[in-house]
Amino acid sequence: MKNLEKLLKILKEERKDSINYTVPDLWFLEDYSIDHKVLPNGEVMVNPYEFYSAVIEEYVLKNKKNKVDYSKSLSSALNLKSTNGDWIKKATLYSSMIRTSSSWDSDRSYSLDISNINGLKETGTFVKTIALLPLLKRMGVTVLYLLPISKYSLKDKKGELGSPYSVESFTRLDPMLKDPITKDKMTVDEEFGALVEACHMLGIRVTIDIIPRTNSVNSELVMEHPDWFYWIKASEAKDYRVPFVESIPDTTYPAPKWMKTVYESEDVLRHIKMFEKNPKETDPELFKTIKGKDPIEFLDNIEKAFDLKIAPAFSDQINDIQPPWSDVTYFRMYLDDPVDTKKYLKIKHNPYILCDTIKSNMYPGKVKNMELWELLSSIIPYYINNFGIDGARIDMGHALPKELLEMIIGKAKEVDPDFTFIAEELNMENDKSAKENGYNAMIGNGFWALPRVKEGEFKKFINHAPELAIPALATSETHDTRRTTFREGGEKLTRMLIVTNFFIPNTIPFINSGEEVYEREPMNTGVDADQSDLDALYKDDPYYGKLALFDKYSFHYTHPRRMEIVNHLKDVVKVREEWLDVLTDNSLYVPLHFYEDRDTLVGLGYFNKKTHKCLVVIANGDMYNGTYVNVSLEVLRQLSKNPSTVGRVRYATYEMPRDFTDFNMNGDLYCYLGSGEVKIIEF
Amino acid sequence: MKNLEKLLKILKEERKDSINYTVPDLWFLEDYSIDHKVLPNGEVMVNPYEFYSAVIEEYVLKNKKNKVDYSKSLSSALNLKSTNGDWIKKATLYSSMIRTSSSWDSDRSYSLDISNINGLKETGTFVKTIALLPLLKRMGVTVLYLLPISKYSLKDKKGELGSPYSVESFTRLDPMLKDPITKDKMTVDEEFGALVEACHMLGIRVTIDIIPRTNSVNSELVMEHPDWFYWIKASEAKDYRVPFVESIPDTTYPAPKWMKTVYESEDVLRHIKMFEKNPKETDPELFKTIKGKDPIEFLDNIEKAFDLKIAPAFSDQINDIQPPWSDVTYFRMYLDDPVDTKKYLKIKHNPYILCDTIKSNMYPGKVKNMELWELLSSIIPYYINNFGIDGARIDMGHALPKELLEMIIGKAKEVDPDFTFIAEELNMENDKSAKENGYNAMIGNGFWALPRVKEGEFKKFINHAPELAIPALATSETHDTRRTTFREGGEKLTRMLIVTNFFIPNTIPFINSGEEVYEREPMNTGVDADQSDLDALYKDDPYYGKLALFDKYSFHYTHPRRMEIVNHLKDVVKVREEWLDVLTDNSLYVPLHFYEDRDTLVGLGYFNKKTHKCLVVIANGDMYNGTYVNVSLEVLRQLSKNPSTVGRVRYATYEMPRDFTDFNMNGDLYCYLGSGEVKIIEF
Repeated sequence: MKNLEKLLKILKEERKDSINYTVPDLWFLEDYSIDHKVLPNGEVMVNPYEFYSAVIEEYVLKNKKNKVDYSKSLSSALNLKSTNGDWIKKATLYSSMIRTSSSWDSDRSYSLDISNINGLKETGTFVKTIALLPLLKRMGVTVLYLLPISKYSLKDKKGELGSPYSVESFTRLDPMLKDPITKDKMTVDEEFGALVEACHMLGIRVTIDIIPRTNSVNSELVMEHPDWFYWIKASEAKDYRVPFVESIPDTTYPAPKWMKTVYESEDVLRHIKMFEKNPKETDPELFKTIKGKDPIEFLDNIEKAFDLKIAPAFSDQINDIQPPWSDVTYFRMYLDDPVDTKKYLKIKHNPYILCDTIKSNMYPGKVKNMELWELLSSIIPYYINNFGIDGARIDMGHALPKELLEMIIGKAKEVDPDFTFIAEELNMENDKSAKENGYNAMIGNGFWALPRVKEGEFKKFINHAPELAIPALATSETHDTRRTTFREGGEKLTRMLIVTNFFIPNTIPFINSGEEVYEREPMNTGVDADQSDLDALYKDDPYYGKLALFDKYSFHYTHPRRMEIVNHLKDVVKVREEWLDVLTDNSLYVPLHFYEDRDTLVGLGYFNKKTHKCLVVIANGDMYNGTYVNVSLEVLRQLSKNPSTVGRVRYATYEMPRDFTDFNMNGDLYCYLGSGEVKIIEF
Repeated sequence: MKNLEKLLKILKEERKDSINYTVPDLWFLEDYSIDHKVLPNGEVMVNPYEFYSAVIEEYVLKNKKNKVDYSKSLSSALNLKSTNGDWIKKATLYSSMIRTSSSWDSDRSYSLDISNINGLKETGTFVKTIALLPLLKRMGVTVLYLLPISKYSLKDKKGELGSPYSVESFTRLDPMLKDPITKDKMTVDEEFGALVEACHMLGIRVTIDIIPRTNSVNSELVMEHPDWFYWIKASEAKDYRVPFVESIPDTTYPAPKWMKTVYESEDVLRHIKMFEKNPKETDPELFKTIKGKDPIEFLDNIEKAFDLKIAPAFSDQINDIQPPWSDVTYFRMYLDDPVDTKKYLKIKHNPYILCDTIKSNMYPGKVKNMELWELLSSIIPYYINNFGIDGARIDMGHALPKELLEMIIGKAKEVDPDFTFIAEELNMENDKSAKENGYNAMIGNGFWALPRVKEGEFKKFINHAPELAIPALATSETHDTRRTTFREGGEKLTRMLIVTNFFIPNTIPFINSGEEVYEREPMNTGVDADQSDLDALYKDDPYYGKLALFDKYSFHYTHPRRMEIVNHLKDVVKVREEWLDVLTDNSLYVPLHFYEDRDTLVGLGYFNKKTHKCLVVIANGDMYNGTYVNVSLEVLRQLSKNPSTVGRVRYATYEMPRDFTDFNMNGDLYCYLGSGEVKIIEF
């Protein structure tokens, strides 16, 4: 029996009565046959055993086909012709951090309990995430894009729960994501397997996020491989800080021209002198005697015996003001100094962290840490073989040695040629190099450009998109950035962008979990966000000032307008699905021009070569004023050979579908666009 | 083992884990040692078994003295010298309808369930009422004044639950008040016994409300005594209406001068002709064959066999516009026609309901229904003997035959000489007759007068109070009237009056359950309230438009300012307790006069003959403006022989206790009184 059916069986066996348990009504969009009570506050009272059983039995398993092994990647399971991972071009992504997205205070104790009054987990789990799939399907999602799910370090953790980016083990899954509803009858691995199977049955692929460049300072690898890490004296750790190069005034990219100056800095030398030999090299005999039931105990014992500890990582930009990241460290990708900069360092030294040693794509050494590289490139094959995942985002992949990246991508494709790779590449100019490196898609800078409508960046992003070598994500936020709803324009801006994003050429619609319920609080303030984001919620909100990446956090699923975006997308997705082949063919795209020529007005035209039909998407990004618009359809009509004077508003965020005859004498479009409105017209 | 200890034992035996149950924090004022979680919304999560156990064990039983039988009336239990029921003069009453006062949506399902997700009752029960006692104690309550607790009719019930004033049985208790938390290990009688014992341990007496004049149209007495009731044809019941005497224009008290006119009215004759012989008299043999498992089935069978049903009651005022009260009927107090009016009725007729026949204090017959009278006067002895209750309110006692009233009071006093009687007498002029009839206190018209501050009625009530032959209740609302907080002045008015009420001479402070949390919705719109009261709550309130007397209702115990009145009274009560003997001695009271002489300003002075100390209570009933006041203390200083120029503000609703020197040259008081403020000054 596969994992999903095993889960269902256990839920039925373990079923208990009289459990006072609620879920958001957004998790209960289907007409499940179980006893339930809809509460006026946006929650539904259910028996959790019955509820999760119903989702599996009445929703997911209905889509199961015989003789398909859903525990394999979807391309393998359905025996699809490989696109070499390019299926991602037609996908719609939903970014989810399992721990957060399926969190809910189900016993309404005003806290997210790890074990609530009924012994159930209120933070997110793989099992509970299955209940979110109907919501995802309704929004047209075809890929569940997961933030890290592996075991992370809990020592000196940031926030209430610690960050999943502080990876302790590449292959062991985060035990926090295990659901106690199955007691010890299922492992966390089996529960993840059940989620992947459920996704695959619904035609949803699953991608994971791997972080090969850094690891927790409590990495389990340290026990076997102390030489893969950088070490400092434990007794001096309190003085460890990011070296500051006084003669370079600003935060600066570590270009070769700066490196001489860097190595001349007294503070850099002070910093380099802090590093020590690794403990095994320091005293191999003593090292052999060190034990520990886990990496934390082992490292504690190392510290006691050697006065050594692993050096924390910090930014690879010169003079970055961020303090060291206390929870993570860099791997030593090379076992010698960088070829290009070692000439600047005259003193005897041990392996050290600096902007060049850690940016090994720019500053490689000669001695590759091949054993580590083998390990790093075995991670994805492990997840493919054991869980059937379909793709991965490589965290900071562009900072890895080129050859290592090739190994990682190559070994994965050996196992699943249709595996997709998403580059954590935010620079839109690096599209070609990302493609060359084997990536199928890139993050891009939509999160930054799209919400900057007034500044013209929204329009520029759309204009630039068709030229990209690989598609970027069409999203105005990520787990690292400010939330769109917290920007000027608020919920109206979120609505306008999320609908438009389904039609931008050569991009991939991407929904950032929580965005669909107008979440205002970022998950992290890492990129394009700052301290002011911590005031995004009212002070009396239970999650005020909390960041999902570190703290217990539950999205505001009972937001008064929680159904708005879901309902918009439900209809928008129908149009996208009908037009998907056209929308993803750049040669069928025609940018539309407005006589009004404003930065806030964008128009996207598409035509179907066979039917000669056209699709026009126009959006008014002005958050205060509606306007009449004249949209030139001249080029679109020429290419499509379509002279129609009657069309249909397939969807508009402000009005009902209707016949559309607002063409003027020369066939151009003339109509009213409300503030923040998007109209989708077919003719 | 007595009932309270039995209850505790059962709660511990039946204890279950993992019950998601909340109570208002106002029910959790003590520092109970149990696991609990205070929620930010004003609730506390508790295990109900542990919680009710803790209240009994850690709060109530601590006051238990050895060898005292708390199941007897408090005077008997403590072997107190009888005051002939006058202990009520020093009491503070809390009016409670068990079904409502201890209601709470403890599973937070947004409905008051008779059996909630854990099989527990969310409407009020005797058991849950025990948890309210700490709140009552904090407000200085010494008497739990209960609305009817006996079984009432559920047939054609008004509202969701029916009215407890529609009594079906005098001695069987309302099964709705049984708490399923004890399963079938305790009867509802035992649970009431446990509540009475708990009250007695805390020094709280218990009074009940008995209704001897009317009974449910489904009274259980009909099976044995059909001749005690009035009958009409069932097939004509739809035409049954209050007769209208056209030649008397207004609603009128049935004075003898009107009675000739009444009997000349055609509509009155039409009405009288509707009445029939009772079924037993109609056909004794057939009557013997009629059976029924309960009064409702029995009456259904009577209706089928005889086409007869019991006639509904209506108001005893001539031309009262209220429709008949479909759920209750009058008892036939006399078995013949009224002596004074039978001369007006020439036609042959059967016993009928009319303003004279039912007002048997004014219009007695000759043939007393002695078997009924014996029964009615045995009710209170039953409650004394079985539950140890301490007093009773007699509903509409003034409309009973004088001799019956004497029987009722006399028989009770035979069993417990210290039993107290409260007259449902709203007319302040009837104080002497009430006293003569044996009553210890009367309701009075405070509910009407006190909130009418601007109109001068507040002041008049206070001025009149010392002259009353028996004390009236000091309360601005009852279960029948508009809520004080719904009147102009709102919460400020409630605060001002509830504090002042603890010091009005010759009256008894009385808190109407819910008043302490600023409840706006009346429990009934019977007196000094109208249809507009049904809009007292916001439309999205779950109890909008519901009346506690008929519907499921839970007070707004989580009101944002729920602690305000409790905290005021906690301190006010200390002053009252210290001064109680003085406050309840009319000869030590001195009304105080303000130079400002406004209807909104009242001053109450008291002096202690032994210590020469004085207590001054001044209140500003102006709901909009504060004012400086000059209060003459001349008389008080003369009588008390107290020349102090320094006193102490013992309490003030707006400021902290402090030394007080605001006396002017001639020893009078000069100070500021905020809008709605009450100051209590001792010197």
